[in-house]
Amino acid sequence: MAEKKKLSGMFAPITSPFDKDGNVDLDHLGANVDRYRETGLSGFLVLGSNGEHRSLNVKEKMRVLDCVIARKAPGQAVMAGSIFESTGETIEFARRAVEAGADFITLLPPSYFKTAMSDAVLLKYFSDTADAAGKPCLIYRAPQFSGGVDLSLNLIKELAGHPNIAGIKDSAPSGIEKILFSAGEDFAVLSGSANTFFQAMLCGASGGVLSIADYLPGHAVRLFRLLEGGALEEAAALNRGILESNTAVSGAYGVGGVKAAMDMTGYYGGVPRLPLLPVDPGGRERIGQAVEKLLRDFLPRGV
Amino acid sequence: MAEKKKLSGMFAPITSPFDKDGNVDLDHLGANVDRYRETGLSGFLVLGSNGEHRSLNVKEKMRVLDCVIARKAPGQAVMAGSIFESTGETIEFARRAVEAGADFITLLPPSYFKTAMSDAVLLKYFSDTADAAGKPCLIYRAPQFSGGVDLSLNLIKELAGHPNIAGIKDSAPSGIEKILFSAGEDFAVLSGSANTFFQAMLCGASGGVLSIADYLPGHAVRLFRLLEGGALEEAAALNRGILESNTAVSGAYGVGGVKAAMDMTGYYGGVPRLPLLPVDPGGRERIGQAVEKLLRDFLPRGV
Amino acid sequence: MAEKKKLSGMFAPITSPFDKDGNVDLDHLGANVDRYRETGLSGFLVLGSNGEHRSLNVKEKMRVLDCVIARKAPGQAVMAGSIFESTGETIEFARRAVEAGADFITLLPPSYFKTAMSDAVLLKYFSDTADAAGKPCLIYRAPQFSGGVDLSLNLIKELAGHPNIAGIKDSAPSGIEKILFSAGEDFAVLSGSANTFFQAMLCGASGGVLSIADYLPGHAVRLFRLLEGGALEEAAALNRGILESNTAVSGAYGVGGVKAAMDMTGYYGGVPRLPLLPVDPGGRERIGQAVEKLLRDFLPRGV
Amino acid sequence: MAEKKKLSGMFAPITSPFDKDGNVDLDHLGANVDRYRETGLSGFLVLGSNGEHRSLNVKEKMRVLDCVIARKAPGQAVMAGSIFESTGETIEFARRAVEAGADFITLLPPSYFKTAMSDAVLLKYFSDTADAAGKPCLIYRAPQFSGGVDLSLNLIKELAGHPNIAGIKDSAPSGIEKILFSAGEDFAVLSGSANTFFQAMLCGASGGVLSIADYLPGHAVRLFRLLEGGALEEAAALNRGILESNTAVSGAYGVGGVKAAMDMTGYYGGVPRLPLLPVDPGGRERIGQAVEKLLRDFLPRGV
Repeated sequence: MAEKKKLSGMFAPITSPFDKDGNVDLDHLGANVDRYRETGLSGFLVLGSNGEHRSLNVKEKMRVLDCVIARKAPGQAVMAGSIFESTGETIEFARRAVEAGADFITLLPPSYFKTAMSDAVLLKYFSDTADAAGKPCLIYRAPQFSGGVDLSLNLIKELAGHPNIAGIKDSAPSGIEKILFSAGEDFAVLSGSANTFFQAMLCGASGGVLSIADYLPGHAVRLFRLLEGGALEEAAALNRGILESNTAVSGAYGVGGVKAAMDMTGYYGGVPRLPLLPVDPGGRERIGQAVEKLLRDFLPRGV
Repeated sequence: MAEKKKLSGMFAPITSPFDKDGNVDLDHLGANVDRYRETGLSGFLVLGSNGEHRSLNVKEKMRVLDCVIARKAPGQAVMAGSIFESTGETIEFARRAVEAGADFITLLPPSYFKTAMSDAVLLKYFSDTADAAGKPCLIYRAPQFSGGVDLSLNLIKELAGHPNIAGIKDSAPSGIEKILFSAGEDFAVLSGSANTFFQAMLCGASGGVLSIADYLPGHAVRLFRLLEGGALEEAAALNRGILESNTAVSGAYGVGGVKAAMDMTGYYGGVPRLPLLPVDPGGRERIGQAVEKLLRDFLPRGV
Repeated sequence: MAEKKKLSGMFAPITSPFDKDGNVDLDHLGANVDRYRETGLSGFLVLGSNGEHRSLNVKEKMRVLDCVIARKAPGQAVMAGSIFESTGETIEFARRAVEAGADFITLLPPSYFKTAMSDAVLLKYFSDTADAAGKPCLIYRAPQFSGGVDLSLNLIKELAGHPNIAGIKDSAPSGIEKILFSAGEDFAVLSGSANTFFQAMLCGASGGVLSIADYLPGHAVRLFRLLEGGALEEAAALNRGILESNTAVSGAYGVGGVKAAMDMTGYYGGVPRLPLLPVDPGGRERIGQAVEKLLRDFLPRGV
Repeated sequence: MAEKKKLSGMFAPITSPFDKDGNVDLDHLGANVDRYRETGLSGFLVLGSNGEHRSLNVKEKMRVLDCVIARKAPGQAVMAGSIFESTGETIEFARRAVEAGADFITLLPPSYFKTAMSDAVLLKYFSDTADAAGKPCLIYRAPQFSGGVDLSLNLIKELAGHPNIAGIKDSAPSGIEKILFSAGEDFAVLSGSANTFFQAMLCGASGGVLSIADYLPGHAVRLFRLLEGGALEEAAALNRGILESNTAVSGAYGVGGVKAAMDMTGYYGGVPRLPLLPVDPGGRERIGQAVEKLLRDFLPRGV
């Protein structure tokens, strides 16, 4: 299946840079993407959690998306988050994103009215959107970001049968293996967390969408390729290094930590939007040590 | 304190009506507000949870708010929800709402990056917004709608000291009494749930923002007045009727149930926006029975 | 129904006193019960959460239960907690408690294997136990103590139909009204929390099992009688005082706080068993102030 | 460190068999252990979650423990769960277990009074017990079994410094890597879940305590040895098979599933104690298929 093939590889869950006045900074975003062109990254998740999608308005979202699409390498795929509470807004933005050139639409379950989010309600939400989007959709499983709303295995299996739902990006702390064991061949499963990526790949995952790909994309791509090529010994060593670094960066400081790490590896990170606070000096020091350790232990390639 | 006085009474957490095509239906909204003028309601919460704020875009929000402000009675107060993830958008919308004539701004804690929502982050969020809003702000405590993010008593005490934070609308299932016991005289505490309203009033609450005020405002207002006047026996009987009705309507069916009940009492409810599903026929029947029972047991006054 | 009648009134969720060496202190327990005889308390919950049941072994439990039964007034009822994970141990202890003279058996849902606790499993657990106990059983709803395992309304309704399940002791922070509205006449509903007692009584509850009855039983009994007699104005004032006191004692410090308050009102409280720590001096001071305020504002009667 | 060495390897979290009348069945338990002697298992966790410890009384616990110690091979280590709410009972049973010959004591955090379980309370609980136990203790991290009470990284680090706390058995769904990265060399980290075992081993874990070791110990031991020996390719294939089987057995059916699987591989499983229900026929069929698939795909060795 063509879509599944395009979903194979390492993807960066791209951040949205802001300038000193807090505005979306397309210059720096474009420069980041220019550098990402040469890294072997298979593509980008734009307007996901690391993209602070919930802190951007629709106009800003479109500008970020347009910029990434304009600057990426031709073969790189773009998944665009269309994450809204209402089915209507989700569809509307999905269509605009497709029109702008997005290859996939990423969908988080609504969660404001959490107790109403039964399997039936979620099935209709995802199906309606996938019917209307115009490009294949990816389910985004991340109960930590959807107010505790998780996706049951039954629901995922049913969604996997939808002709326009191509796969899932699973960023939950655990449970990706269960999905891999029950999903069919043509349903792509991408790990959205360094903590689950390695084992998920050994169980048939298509690839990963990892924070570390934002600041050390070469390392992330290399890990994917080692796993793809079956060089497990080298992969395991690199994975351990990445895990430890990721724990100190994204694990401890979230988006703000990822942005701080980007500032240390030649990308533009900057600060997250309020209410998120910038990483304090002590945190930046710990992040710097974690990044340096990974660079010292594993020669960067293709960054 | 003038603001506290304006926060005394019974308020309706107004719904946002949609027409058959799913568009915001200002005609019906206006007609609803016309009827609410004569009910004794002290005012309205616009763009709260019952208003499906997260399913409206900014343009729609402003149209709903403008309509309510244009049609309400002169003495009725308007609290406008400015509920966004980023501090920037929250402030921007709060200012627009104030410009449009809102008397109070209601603020829910951000929650997308839940683990980052420390007391320090939330204090800065609410303070920054209150500094900039231009009208007094109300904290909205509703962990069921903010992904489990609750507000610690320490945080609430600190916020109560801010010159531009006038009070709290507490819709959590429990805990309002603790706030009442620790808040100062000039910090208004409004109950946002029929389940806590009665006892909260006996402990010093200023008033309520209850779903039942959307479909049987006369009953809600009467309950407030009985409590205010110390007619506890009659208040207790009416409260019991309202609680039972509320359990069958809002408790069992949420916003969709409230809208269905409005359709039965001469208001326009209609259906909620997807992903929320309309109440099914069996549910409408149960809601009808609950409304009828309350009307049968307690003569409506001033509806 | 005779059982229901016996479940009407104010009950003390009795603490288990320990001596300096940490052993169960029957002398002090007996002395406490002697004083409770004269208070108007309708009876006792022995071996509940305030009784630190999970920190007593079976032998200690029986000694505590025997002591209370031996020293209580003839008309006072005894509910004995038989709280174990396995159905077998629950039944075995329930029978021993009945043999010892307990009038009711109180049952908390098992929760160690939380995800396995479906309605079907819980229905069988409660039914098997009620079938075998030999005296009427009470369901104990307290998700905060049963690892988050709550009881669905459907399950409660089904259990209410069991000939040997006489009622429920509801200590959850919210939701007791729903149970009152759906339970039949002969199903006793007791509030297990000062936070829900007042309104529950107005909605048909049979009585209460309140921590405050451990240290100021006269106040607790008086509140019940005022509510029973329809003297709502006086009840509301006393209720407010009790709520505020309860927030500062049990709400803030749990069992340790209740024991500290008992030490201040002529009962023997002592310290809880480790791992619970005794209340520190600052806490004791705050508890003392809360108790004094209640005594100052409301003359003790029948303590 | 001698203790750490003894904690290296694959351990079985042994089940407690019951006869037809529901009594502890030492004959079958002994026969199981006899067979486990020849499997290469490094030892056993007795009276853990799979051992249904909370459904056994102290007398039964001692009989189970004595039986395992009497029948195990000389080199096999025994970790005994001493899991009680009170510090006193925990210490008392730990001492009895040590006297009976247990090599390690496994400790779950108390959780009945969940909100009181601060780091300070837990630190004292574990320290007091470790001081008194007489043999090295292992922390048992399993929030799914301790009512949501988790152990902070700071607490774990502090506990790791206690001379008599030898390590941790981590059965949580995620987070073991963080512990591995921050714990010192002489602090043993054992994975208690097939879902985390593989990657944990690659990050420095000492071994595993896996359900699959109860019914297919040869496979579990082989996985450990492959990982220990660096044969990652073969390990990854076997791990995938084990994960898939484990998902269908322990993941879907818990202790009852593990017991059903044991019945299919020559061990005595039997049924769990009520309130846990036996696996229904459909479930047994699915478990059978999962076990057969693993046996078909991976030749058993040393079972």
